[in-house]
Amino acid sequence: MSNFIRTLKTKVLLGDGAMGTMLAALGLPPGQSPELWMPEHPETIKKIHQAYLEAGSEVIQTNTFGANAIKLKEYHASSLVREINIKAAKLAKEVAGTKAFVAGIVGPSGHFPAPLGDISWTELVEVFAEQVQALAEGGADFIFLETFSDLGEARAALYAAKQYTSLPVACSLTYTKGRTLTGTTPEVAAVVLEAMGADLVGANCSTGPEELLEVMAAYRKATNLPLLVEPNAGMPEFIAGKTVYKLSPEIMARYVEPFRQLGVNLIGACCGSTPEHIKAMSQAFVSREPVWPSPRTFPTRLASRTQVVSLGTSELPLMIGERINPTARKTIAEAFRQENWPLLNEEARNQVKAGALALDLNVGVPGLDEGHLLAQGVQHLQLALDVPLVLDCTRPEALEKGLQEYQGKALINSVNGEEGSLNSILPLARKYGAAVIGLTLDERGIPEKAEERLAIAEKIVRRAQEYDIAKEDVVIDCLVLTAATSPGIAMETVRAIQLVKERLGVSTVLGVSNVSHGLPQRSWLNSTFLALALGAGLDGAIVNPLDTRVGETVASAALLTGRDPGAQNYLVRSGKTAPIVEERKDPGSTNKEPSLETL
Amino acid sequence: MSNFIRTLKTKVLLGDGAMGTMLAALGLPPGQSPELWMPEHPETIKKIHQAYLEAGSEVIQTNTFGANAIKLKEYHASSLVREINIKAAKLAKEVAGTKAFVAGIVGPSGHFPAPLGDISWTELVEVFAEQVQALAEGGADFIFLETFSDLGEARAALYAAKQYTSLPVACSLTYTKGRTLTGTTPEVAAVVLEAMGADLVGANCSTGPEELLEVMAAYRKATNLPLLVEPNAGMPEFIAGKTVYKLSPEIMARYVEPFRQLGVNLIGACCGSTPEHIKAMSQAFVSREPVWPSPRTFPTRLASRTQVVSLGTSELPLMIGERINPTARKTIAEAFRQENWPLLNEEARNQVKAGALALDLNVGVPGLDEGHLLAQGVQHLQLALDVPLVLDCTRPEALEKGLQEYQGKALINSVNGEEGSLNSILPLARKYGAAVIGLTLDERGIPEKAEERLAIAEKIVRRAQEYDIAKEDVVIDCLVLTAATSPGIAMETVRAIQLVKERLGVSTVLGVSNVSHGLPQRSWLNSTFLALALGAGLDGAIVNPLDTRVGETVASAALLTGRDPGAQNYLVRSGKTAPIVEERKDPGSTNKEPSLETL
Ligand SMILES: [Zn+2]
Ligand SMILES: [Zn+2]
Ligand SMILES: [Zn+2]
Repeated sequence: MSNFIRTLKTKVLLGDGAMGTMLAALGLPPGQSPELWMPEHPETIKKIHQAYLEAGSEVIQTNTFGANAIKLKEYHASSLVREINIKAAKLAKEVAGTKAFVAGIVGPSGHFPAPLGDISWTELVEVFAEQVQALAEGGADFIFLETFSDLGEARAALYAAKQYTSLPVACSLTYTKGRTLTGTTPEVAAVVLEAMGADLVGANCSTGPEELLEVMAAYRKATNLPLLVEPNAGMPEFIAGKTVYKLSPEIMARYVEPFRQLGVNLIGACCGSTPEHIKAMSQAFVSREPVWPSPRTFPTRLASRTQVVSLGTSELPLMIGERINPTARKTIAEAFRQENWPLLNEEARNQVKAGALALDLNVGVPGLDEGHLLAQGVQHLQLALDVPLVLDCTRPEALEKGLQEYQGKALINSVNGEEGSLNSILPLARKYGAAVIGLTLDERGIPEKAEERLAIAEKIVRRAQEYDIAKEDVVIDCLVLTAATSPGIAMETVRAIQLVKERLGVSTVLGVSNVSHGLPQRSWLNSTFLALALGAGLDGAIVNPLDTRVGETVASAALLTGRDPGAQNYLVRSGKTAPIVEERKDPGSTNKEPSLETL
Repeated sequence: MSNFIRTLKTKVLLGDGAMGTMLAALGLPPGQSPELWMPEHPETIKKIHQAYLEAGSEVIQTNTFGANAIKLKEYHASSLVREINIKAAKLAKEVAGTKAFVAGIVGPSGHFPAPLGDISWTELVEVFAEQVQALAEGGADFIFLETFSDLGEARAALYAAKQYTSLPVACSLTYTKGRTLTGTTPEVAAVVLEAMGADLVGANCSTGPEELLEVMAAYRKATNLPLLVEPNAGMPEFIAGKTVYKLSPEIMARYVEPFRQLGVNLIGACCGSTPEHIKAMSQAFVSREPVWPSPRTFPTRLASRTQVVSLGTSELPLMIGERINPTARKTIAEAFRQENWPLLNEEARNQVKAGALALDLNVGVPGLDEGHLLAQGVQHLQLALDVPLVLDCTRPEALEKGLQEYQGKALINSVNGEEGSLNSILPLARKYGAAVIGLTLDERGIPEKAEERLAIAEKIVRRAQEYDIAKEDVVIDCLVLTAATSPGIAMETVRAIQLVKERLGVSTVLGVSNVSHGLPQRSWLNSTFLALALGAGLDGAIVNPLDTRVGETVASAALLTGRDPGAQNYLVRSGKTAPIVEERKDPGSTNKEPSLETL
């Protein structure tokens, strides 16, 4: 554990404030890049760092917010990325010495990744990798990704920071009315960024401290990670053509204790703040003791860019739509062949309307490029829908393409107990922050006995943990064979689910429909078997949501197994109560006013 | 154990043959009652007994076939019952000495019990009680009820023999084409008579030995009790106004070993046989070693007069129709008030058409005579339908009336763990040969925890065994409360079922519909909960069969839990295969030619 993280665990740290206003006051001409101006004015930069250090800052931010190749290209200076970032880190380090930590600042590229924007995952990762490596080389104590307004871009930056440095990484988004520009909530951000390996998450900039209280409370509810907050000095106001922030040092200081009480571990300030603000904040602490939440474990959480869904013993059973799968459906195979995304989106939407809370995406058509289709499918479906995706693919190269494009926390379907599978799939789950379904089969096939399936599940969970994948991110599928060939064997699956739940305590999921393969009235068998599996503790089911009996069974079993206290979900499904639907946030259609970093 | 039964266990005994032909040859005038002729010709009777004894008979039958009050009334001699039976037993005993056992013969009254005939249960029991008591007083070693063609009458005679003597009781019906006159199969007879306490069951008279081979094989399949067979000397033929039996002693003798091999323990002969037949049969034994079936346990078996249905781990789950219950249905309450049996029969038939294999009969309408209605309901429904009845009544006096009228093996619904209930209901189950549902509640109500319900179930099973009720005749209902008030509690019932199955090994049944009381879409919850309960090992469910989803769930769960090997039942229910329906035997409409005892 780095010294920075170790310190954070025992002491709430005070960050610094804005650099832009200070630079302008000290001679930066309007319209000039602060980063390009720096090399010729190192003492001015150090003076600002020094002022914050003296005001009480324990974290000094490098002057590198726009020091990435894309931003610097606007000044025809993209070749200077490495030099500038090393320089900026060194300047900050010279001032900070051992008295403060240096945050290697990384801001957004100004472009959204595809499909919202025009930039590819690979390009984004390359751009951020170049910057973070230089910051590390220059001596930054941690990488601080800040003021991101799109989770997809933040995720790419975080990936670069984790893959190309060994520094801790803080990741901070900016919020208006509780969402980022492209619809992400603090809960979603916490789930996705933690899965990707963030060491510290939080919010900065935004509309000032007042609104971020709620945001930070939501973060604290969603993660055990250390949190950070660096609000603007109030709402930006445009007065006489200039952006003005009106909150005084005294008023900013009033929020320090509330943030600490909420469990924030690094408190600083953003646009409009000065060393006076930091000084007032420094004096406002009643204690530096971190307020940690009482120990919690979380269920398995999946996320799209806009929604978190959970799988676990205390959650409603998760219905995962199985219908985007060309294996048994010719129209789907044909749609992939023609890349008919409107049809596939429609297929997806219909499943969600019927109650699916996540969608399985299988693009495996013989002869077609699975990696290309998976990446395309992920892009299209995540744009069209709010529900998280399950990437149904066992070829590592293809799967990786899909995972790169997925801007949430995906569920991989699947790894199994074979060495080849474990060694290729688990590293991808770790790198791309995905949960993973583990099938209880191995080199010898699907064992008949529940105990043998448990043993494979145990191995998968152990191996996943060796890859630093959290236990709650392993979801076991005990597999069911068709009841047509050996009827009683289906109960072995039910028993396996029960054993896996009891002994391993991990979440379980099951592809249900196979049980009725080759038999008439499949809906009867699917729903009855689903009830049996849910009774044994099954947490999620990959099913056909258009078969209404299946959804009715899920709602009924949820109630009967105590997962629906107050019968709220059941009453909604049975039409007795109107659903409380969270409004769909269309990316780009709401929160239209970005709080752009204007330092 | 009596000396007779003890002997039977180790040695196949040879019975005797006909008395009628012998009496005629020795002077009995045509048209005269053999029993009334006897007191004045004791030496003739003894001579016949002696002839059989010398031929090898080890069981000598008293000359009392028609010596009951109803038969003797035809000769205005019903006051002589006691005297004649005592006398006949003594005569047989004098000959038999210690060389043979004396069978106290009881034949049918010649009248069917209501509703097929005109005679009441009480009258029948009184008539047979008088006869069997006298036979016992005269020294018979066991009571031998023979040549009964109606199970209801045999059941009344058996009841009288068990209640009014302490002798072993053998019970033998007469068959044509595998059924008695009123539609009973050997399997049904075995189940009902064994439940009523018969010590020995079998067939006599009928069409001769050939057809009885199959009948005895069916008996042996259905019971572990000792078996008896006493066939006529062939098919009765009417030649020149006389009934003639053509099988020679040599031919009759050929069947001795086949019967022994089938597991028959007492082999004799009926109409048309003579001491020569017995002598030939005596010489035909290769061995006297009884052939016992390998040890078997049976599932819980219920029976109407014409059908056996089973409940148990290896059986298809039994769907019991719940709809004849006035508690929540005004039309049913009104039908009972008006004794509108056509409507109630229709309600019953609709449930059977929908797949119910047994029907619950609850007649509890406040202000009406429950005993009267239960007796009437039993009479009407058992006449209209083939499926066994579940008598849903907890008031012992009323229940007893229903049990008396029921000519099969009923299922009592119910006893519970309260002392008052155990002490009043269990003796009725024993006396009337019924299985009994034990509810897991007691003085303190329904316990919350599965373990506590198991404890009550354990107590009920133990107490039933103290009352000499077989373990397989106790069926536990673990009870479910509505999920509306405390959702998760339903799983406690599922757990209780599992515990009861595992620890006690008894059959289980459940009134399912209560789980959805007060909730919308009850069918969803009922069928889902049913699946959960069936998964835990539930053997039967009291449900609304007109809710097709329930029946579909039963068929599906049967397949999935391995109770439907080959999916035969599932394919029938799903319409893929035509059902193999056993033809409905209308009592009185088939097997019209009774093989009347014409000795
Ligand atoms: Zn800002
Ligand atoms: Zn006969
Ligand atoms: Zn006879």
